[in-house]
Amino acid sequence: MELKKIVIDAMGGDDAPKAMVEGAVWALNTCEDIYLILTGDEPKINEILKGKTYDKNRMEIIHTTEVITNDESPVLAIRRKKDASLVRALYLVKDKKAEALVSAGSTGAVLAGGTLVIGRMKGIERPALGSLIPNEKGMTLLIDCGANVDSKPHFLHQFAKMGSIYYENILDIKHPKVALVNNGSEDKKGNALVKDTFPLLKNDTTLNFIGNMEARDIPTGEAHVIVCDGFVGNVILKLTEGLAASLLGMVKESIMSTTVSKIGGLLIKKSMKSMKKRLDYTEYGGAPLLGLEALVVKAHGSSNAKAFKNAILQCKTFIDHKVNDKIKQQLL
Amino acid sequence: MELKKIVIDAMGGDDAPKAMVEGAVWALNTCEDIYLILTGDEPKINEILKGKTYDKNRMEIIHTTEVITNDESPVLAIRRKKDASLVRALYLVKDKKAEALVSAGSTGAVLAGGTLVIGRMKGIERPALGSLIPNEKGMTLLIDCGANVDSKPHFLHQFAKMGSIYYENILDIKHPKVALVNNGSEDKKGNALVKDTFPLLKNDTTLNFIGNMEARDIPTGEAHVIVCDGFVGNVILKLTEGLAASLLGMVKESIMSTTVSKIGGLLIKKSMKSMKKRLDYTEYGGAPLLGLEALVVKAHGSSNAKAFKNAILQCKTFIDHKVNDKIKQQLL
Repeated sequence: MELKKIVIDAMGGDDAPKAMVEGAVWALNTCEDIYLILTGDEPKINEILKGKTYDKNRMEIIHTTEVITNDESPVLAIRRKKDASLVRALYLVKDKKAEALVSAGSTGAVLAGGTLVIGRMKGIERPALGSLIPNEKGMTLLIDCGANVDSKPHFLHQFAKMGSIYYENILDIKHPKVALVNNGSEDKKGNALVKDTFPLLKNDTTLNFIGNMEARDIPTGEAHVIVCDGFVGNVILKLTEGLAASLLGMVKESIMSTTVSKIGGLLIKKSMKSMKKRLDYTEYGGAPLLGLEALVVKAHGSSNAKAFKNAILQCKTFIDHKVNDKIKQQLL
Repeated sequence: MELKKIVIDAMGGDDAPKAMVEGAVWALNTCEDIYLILTGDEPKINEILKGKTYDKNRMEIIHTTEVITNDESPVLAIRRKKDASLVRALYLVKDKKAEALVSAGSTGAVLAGGTLVIGRMKGIERPALGSLIPNEKGMTLLIDCGANVDSKPHFLHQFAKMGSIYYENILDIKHPKVALVNNGSEDKKGNALVKDTFPLLKNDTTLNFIGNMEARDIPTGEAHVIVCDGFVGNVILKLTEGLAASLLGMVKESIMSTTVSKIGGLLIKKSMKSMKKRLDYTEYGGAPLLGLEALVVKAHGSSNAKAFKNAILQCKTFIDHKVNDKIKQQLL
């Protein structure tokens, strides 16, 4: 059995390296055919590994001395901090020592490093960050959600193609429905970018394009893949997170406001659990950066061990399904 | 006492003319110093008015024979349908027969008609649509939420100024906090439009500008006025509506899933009411189109009588506070 090699930036994220190391152990114990390389502070990593049961032959630690923070310039940090856990991880992928990378570090550094070190896939104009968000029926892939804040129509066309292939392979839905975010559902609606993108998607017979979609309809799950520029995608992703937290907070506050409703709250607690699980980002791994020579997954900054485990397994599925080869075939 | 004259397009909206006429009667009975002119199908309007108690000296009906629908080209409809309820209403304002207009009709037609017939205020580059959305602490004014899908930095600067003056006068908060929607909160973040807008807002000492804001933080209510281009604003407005409906639907579904949680649901019902009221758009009137020679309020297409009543009272407050004069002073 050939092992899939995945490298993990163990020092990126709010709860690093604990969440990353525990997530790696969890992934190894869940899945037999992965081999994990952790870049980071070896003594700290070993401290967390102490007493844990896992297949030691499938894990390797590469000691690094630097960490890239959220506050520094991503491009400069990638260029200067040669011994940063993220930079070493990126070079392992570039040098074909691993097939995919997971990091919960600075989004800017992960995006910049992916392009600068690993490099764009031939034919791809701009790599795009996809993100899986829960909807009423299942999951929506939102692409781009932040890598390209100033986009062009043919970038968005490529985002649609890459997103569609990713969704089909990772979520196992044939011909996923693709929609373009717009300020109205009519064909002629939109700003200049969206108006020029529409015919490109409409005329591409490889896509199951269902047309324009107002933001109101995103949560219904009518489309599997939602295409937009990175600025709009970032607004959608973050507003979804913020509003879900805010509304559930308001529900909780209402419930805690009287004794009667507090009792009611206890009675609905169990039923609410499955809903909370559906809204929990840790269930869904991380955001894939698509269009590079290898997969890079940006995990949420506040990822816990479970989120990291799922991000690692997401990489394995990506490799198993040869998603990058399929993207290359479709785009050349 | 001088009466404030407000004209109502009685034929626009899903429940026209019933909701509009009932809202007008409600407003007349709530407020003594308004005079309402309704444009629309007179027999139908009279049918609804039959048996209702209100001050008949403060209502006037102007019979019209045409209606503009959501499906037609807004600009062509405004030009050709001279006897449409909306067009007649617009000309009443242009000819100074009324000081403000409320319509729940086609957004495109209201926007186009406002600019084509009533006209921009001198010095205003582009009128902008504001919208009040509930947040954790109160209300946020989102501007622009759809009038200008392709904007320029100095348009956004004017939106910020108009929004700030509107908020201060209508919501009675001195020096409302203004934020710019961005994909990060750092000063240098953003797409080209936002990067160029930032210094304009930062250097304007008339504004209480608190910087960039990620969409995640919009629901917290940290800013009173949220500035963005019309495409992004439309996404924020509609996603907020869609997600609130979707999440509350999920909560309801969870509650209905078992007998125990159904009982719990009954116990929390009363406490949830005040939350629902806060999220109910009918409480907040309509979206003001700012930057025209007179106020135009776009009421929600599905407005009921209460929403219409509130939109009419919103016009009265606008006139009372001479908001347009204040905008003119600030912008000249």
